[in-house]
Amino acid sequence: MTSTQKTIKAGILGASGYTGAEAMRLLLRHPGVDLTLLTADRKAGQSVEEVYPHLGGYGLPDMISVADADWSSVDVVFCGLPHGTTQEIIATLPGSVKVVDLSADFRLRDPETYAEWYGHEHRALELQKKAVYGLTEFNRDDVKAARLVACPGCYPTAALLAMLPLVSAGLVDPEDIVIDAKSGITGAGRGLKQNTLFSEAGEGLSPYSVAKHRHAPEIEQEIAKSAGVAAGDIRVNFVPHLIPMSRGELVTCHVRLTGGKTVADLKGAYHNAFENEPFVRLLSDGAMPQTQMVRGSNLCVINAFEDRIPGRATVIAAIDNLVKGSSGQAVQNMNLMFGFEETLGLEQAPLFP
Amino acid sequence: MTSTQKTIKAGILGASGYTGAEAMRLLLRHPGVDLTLLTADRKAGQSVEEVYPHLGGYGLPDMISVADADWSSVDVVFCGLPHGTTQEIIATLPGSVKVVDLSADFRLRDPETYAEWYGHEHRALELQKKAVYGLTEFNRDDVKAARLVACPGCYPTAALLAMLPLVSAGLVDPEDIVIDAKSGITGAGRGLKQNTLFSEAGEGLSPYSVAKHRHAPEIEQEIAKSAGVAAGDIRVNFVPHLIPMSRGELVTCHVRLTGGKTVADLKGAYHNAFENEPFVRLLSDGAMPQTQMVRGSNLCVINAFEDRIPGRATVIAAIDNLVKGSSGQAVQNMNLMFGFEETLGLEQAPLFP
Amino acid sequence: MTSTQKTIKAGILGASGYTGAEAMRLLLRHPGVDLTLLTADRKAGQSVEEVYPHLGGYGLPDMISVADADWSSVDVVFCGLPHGTTQEIIATLPGSVKVVDLSADFRLRDPETYAEWYGHEHRALELQKKAVYGLTEFNRDDVKAARLVACPGCYPTAALLAMLPLVSAGLVDPEDIVIDAKSGITGAGRGLKQNTLFSEAGEGLSPYSVAKHRHAPEIEQEIAKSAGVAAGDIRVNFVPHLIPMSRGELVTCHVRLTGGKTVADLKGAYHNAFENEPFVRLLSDGAMPQTQMVRGSNLCVINAFEDRIPGRATVIAAIDNLVKGSSGQAVQNMNLMFGFEETLGLEQAPLFP
Amino acid sequence: MTSTQKTIKAGILGASGYTGAEAMRLLLRHPGVDLTLLTADRKAGQSVEEVYPHLGGYGLPDMISVADADWSSVDVVFCGLPHGTTQEIIATLPGSVKVVDLSADFRLRDPETYAEWYGHEHRALELQKKAVYGLTEFNRDDVKAARLVACPGCYPTAALLAMLPLVSAGLVDPEDIVIDAKSGITGAGRGLKQNTLFSEAGEGLSPYSVAKHRHAPEIEQEIAKSAGVAAGDIRVNFVPHLIPMSRGELVTCHVRLTGGKTVADLKGAYHNAFENEPFVRLLSDGAMPQTQMVRGSNLCVINAFEDRIPGRATVIAAIDNLVKGSSGQAVQNMNLMFGFEETLGLEQAPLFP
Repeated sequence: MTSTQKTIKAGILGASGYTGAEAMRLLLRHPGVDLTLLTADRKAGQSVEEVYPHLGGYGLPDMISVADADWSSVDVVFCGLPHGTTQEIIATLPGSVKVVDLSADFRLRDPETYAEWYGHEHRALELQKKAVYGLTEFNRDDVKAARLVACPGCYPTAALLAMLPLVSAGLVDPEDIVIDAKSGITGAGRGLKQNTLFSEAGEGLSPYSVAKHRHAPEIEQEIAKSAGVAAGDIRVNFVPHLIPMSRGELVTCHVRLTGGKTVADLKGAYHNAFENEPFVRLLSDGAMPQTQMVRGSNLCVINAFEDRIPGRATVIAAIDNLVKGSSGQAVQNMNLMFGFEETLGLEQAPLFP
Repeated sequence: MTSTQKTIKAGILGASGYTGAEAMRLLLRHPGVDLTLLTADRKAGQSVEEVYPHLGGYGLPDMISVADADWSSVDVVFCGLPHGTTQEIIATLPGSVKVVDLSADFRLRDPETYAEWYGHEHRALELQKKAVYGLTEFNRDDVKAARLVACPGCYPTAALLAMLPLVSAGLVDPEDIVIDAKSGITGAGRGLKQNTLFSEAGEGLSPYSVAKHRHAPEIEQEIAKSAGVAAGDIRVNFVPHLIPMSRGELVTCHVRLTGGKTVADLKGAYHNAFENEPFVRLLSDGAMPQTQMVRGSNLCVINAFEDRIPGRATVIAAIDNLVKGSSGQAVQNMNLMFGFEETLGLEQAPLFP
Repeated sequence: MTSTQKTIKAGILGASGYTGAEAMRLLLRHPGVDLTLLTADRKAGQSVEEVYPHLGGYGLPDMISVADADWSSVDVVFCGLPHGTTQEIIATLPGSVKVVDLSADFRLRDPETYAEWYGHEHRALELQKKAVYGLTEFNRDDVKAARLVACPGCYPTAALLAMLPLVSAGLVDPEDIVIDAKSGITGAGRGLKQNTLFSEAGEGLSPYSVAKHRHAPEIEQEIAKSAGVAAGDIRVNFVPHLIPMSRGELVTCHVRLTGGKTVADLKGAYHNAFENEPFVRLLSDGAMPQTQMVRGSNLCVINAFEDRIPGRATVIAAIDNLVKGSSGQAVQNMNLMFGFEETLGLEQAPLFP
Repeated sequence: MTSTQKTIKAGILGASGYTGAEAMRLLLRHPGVDLTLLTADRKAGQSVEEVYPHLGGYGLPDMISVADADWSSVDVVFCGLPHGTTQEIIATLPGSVKVVDLSADFRLRDPETYAEWYGHEHRALELQKKAVYGLTEFNRDDVKAARLVACPGCYPTAALLAMLPLVSAGLVDPEDIVIDAKSGITGAGRGLKQNTLFSEAGEGLSPYSVAKHRHAPEIEQEIAKSAGVAAGDIRVNFVPHLIPMSRGELVTCHVRLTGGKTVADLKGAYHNAFENEPFVRLLSDGAMPQTQMVRGSNLCVINAFEDRIPGRATVIAAIDNLVKGSSGQAVQNMNLMFGFEETLGLEQAPLFP
């Protein structure tokens, strides 16, 4: 890798969170990128080694405050700031800086839906209109041309990779989708919360935010778009669960087939959608998607199964929430935005066990 | 506890498995029971300390082969033998010995369904007719009078405690039930399998037996009975997942409400069904059932939630698969069969963290 | 248990921590104790169910502030308050209230050592003089007569049960003891710290406080006493490690045998010390102490092994840090202080798996 | 990576074990290597996807039996076969094939020691004489010239990286070294054993093979060599523990300083030994080595600490047992044997969380 010329300079805003750390991990080995800016307001002045000991020794710059950032030093920023803060900071960036946003601020296209779920009016509506929803496999051309890409949430990434090929082909009823979702605990971030302590989350299993999770409207928005109906017309059942593992996310989608369609049809749709995709893998018949199959990689594995109830099916998809569900997909989008090979820096095979 | 007179003698067949060990743990402190017989064919001749070091030091008898058992020494046996073996051995027991069966052999009342799912004709049909399905809360009187109780599977225990009050009251459509189930790894037993190795199951999440799990027909049988329809008329969607924890089981049931019914109606039904039950606890509004709340105890915690899709709801129940889902419920049934207080020996509070 | 008369009333100060919760778990089933007072300053006004959902449903009193406690309502308090706070509050209690202290405030007999390790002068020196060090097996008579018992820290409990029989019998050199200690993560408490988050502590292993842990002087104090030398004359090597499990503690002690002594001599000393102890179990030859053997119980398992280096040996002891290492030993001491059977309320067999 | 020319062909013998899988993970992305041969006798005929689902989709060859291998198709083999089998198979390979051995067969130079610890006479003594011990940092020149490299065991790798700089500089007493070692469960391999089941190893901690582990003589051999004394003259205390995590290994070495030496001297020795090493990182003062800092990478992190006992110190090193402790170090050695950059294919940053 040493011989490749570094062609762009990148910054990470909010580098002290888990998505920030994962972006660092991927970018410090990306052959086309120099990491020149790391911000973390509460850790400003600290070295990477202090904040993330596993990333010491790579010569990365120290953390600084966002207010002290020199934007002329970067071609692109990955933005892992808290929801709400993001839109204010991004709005102040020079237009020459491209933005790959990992927050939720630009995912919802309808300002009213945003306000309803996030509790305040959106404060960068003009930017929001131009933001591209960065589910790469379904928006590749728009991503290439975008200045601001809003990367999907981790749950929507898995759920939409599983649902969109089926909905767009009219194979399942978009009004009867149950998404039973399971996530590793990094999904809750590095902030200090009682329920993510080892002794609280370990050896146990907790549903949370039943029917109230902010990823639900995002999933509904994209399913409605794919089904060709108005955003408000689709509602999905979405129940997330916290699983005692650090990484990994799996969605079990219980769907109703449209008249006469079969599981074979679902697999055909996946085949058509993903056969040339470098990061989505339809498993062979009967093979179960597991989070162990994608850990540390940008892969999504997926499969479809008969249900016992006639006319229904179960589809399952698994990703690493910090890679394809977050920073990996962000790098994938950045690659497209800057004309790199889409897989550059994302070739790592999964880590198992 | 030392002063209570031991009034019955109990044996455990298949004491080397996890359900056997859990029965030992509970019974060795039960004030009315003397554990006088432990069988484990492949471990015959070994002490309890060798097979289960944590149970050494309690003066339990050594493991012997089933063939060497003296049935006159026991009033009751807990049977944790492999499916299939069970029915043959139980058929040979003297009628004076009561049986609490932990295997699947006597759970399915229809011999054809049994043969379809277990791959061979049932070999003790007369016994099967007399067996009582030991979901205690719903069959208490029959259990009291039974000689042979077939304890439910772990998944059916949780699923049926959640579903039967709603189905019997006509609050949900029994033909549109999705049971997304999650289990700790003890559910797969102590046998050596690659997928239950620490390094395979840890830090990961695996669905399995999608729509093909043997607990599905058992759940369907009891829901059909509760709905007042023929056994074959109900099919449920049942998808189990293996979770990286040792104990605990949680079912997330996605249901369709019958016309005009609400989540408040569901809670009312739970209140009616369980208000006097010592081992089932309806949580307060919004509180999430978690497996952490029941570890090591015979409790089931349960709650109901609005769905985003109008006319649907989510109900969630959690148990310890080795206690209420297996050996604890077995002791609960034994208490009834012998006239003990139903809670005797099962009073332990959950172990958390 | 229902027929036993409750004879004393107990309170728990600092009930919202893990040791407090564990004291609740044990005492709510103790046949001689009514739990009538629970304090938790930051959770004052909350129900037990809110603070510890697994303990809801037992009719325990709500949490109140220490300032609002009615001391006339209790015969004994278990004190799980932060170090430093403890001594001030205990000093204000009426003399009629016995105290079982779980904090470190009264463990170190030398005020200078206390000040050195805890950073401030002791503020209740008169009480400290009267406090009895509650390592039950070695101070039984003093505990029976005490008003204030200072329960040992979790590490000292395991380390001293392993070391004292050997040191007092002159079998090992007290000046050449290496204690390599490993603890589950509950040992760090329920407070919010980054290093005890699931995603930080899981799938990993961290030494900490190398040669600087506050349990070192406590271990040294008791070893010196046992060896019959001045407290300052003994120093031990003590290195603790954080292990990715919730409960459990194991000490691996690397010792030098005094002239001509053998591992058989060590086992003989253990046999003499523990043969009548209800909670300490010397394992059979070659059997390894494991934390899995004691989870949820008040047991300590222990064994001794030959070293490869002539004249050296390895002794290993395992406990549950929240039971024998904390609240279980506290209940054991309370039993002695009030004339109950020493094992009352502590009979539970270990929970495995 | 796509543009680099693949220059050598590699095979993995015993590809179905964890070290084999890890070698596959690393080599399938190595820019200079084509993986052309995978053997696994019991899995012969299976695809990689069947044996290791996470490595499906990379176009690797199917597993075959060793007997069916075409040795002319490979320039190098990584040998992850069981101990004993290895020596017989390697002895039959054509001399043109270089061998990186991951087994224990060629680590011990003294045939009597081998026979004592492995229970049979060595069956390839001529090869053993030529084998180079592949602790890269200390044998770099010999590795470059070798045909057969015996990669160190996982524990010896960590222990020797920590000990050799100190022993060779005369800073510690080689006859008073206590190595308290901790390993993740992959260290026990993929074979089916009861003690590595999730429900047995999880939430617990087990010492094993106290003073009897086969890595002890290997550590002693290299320490003796470094100290300049005969192999049999050094004995170390070595106690390994099984930790509930999949990957990672940490050694806590308790040492006695030679007259007047200090921890600063130890750090100086580490600095001298490792300042130009790409894979060994001396941490800054007070920073604790943790396995979380090296997961998935070929790194070793190391540090030294004062002991409470005057004249003693504690040094700690952490590695990923499957990478630096096994397949990563193997690739590092292969790079040297074939003239590649030593770090090629091993540049991945650690995966955390």
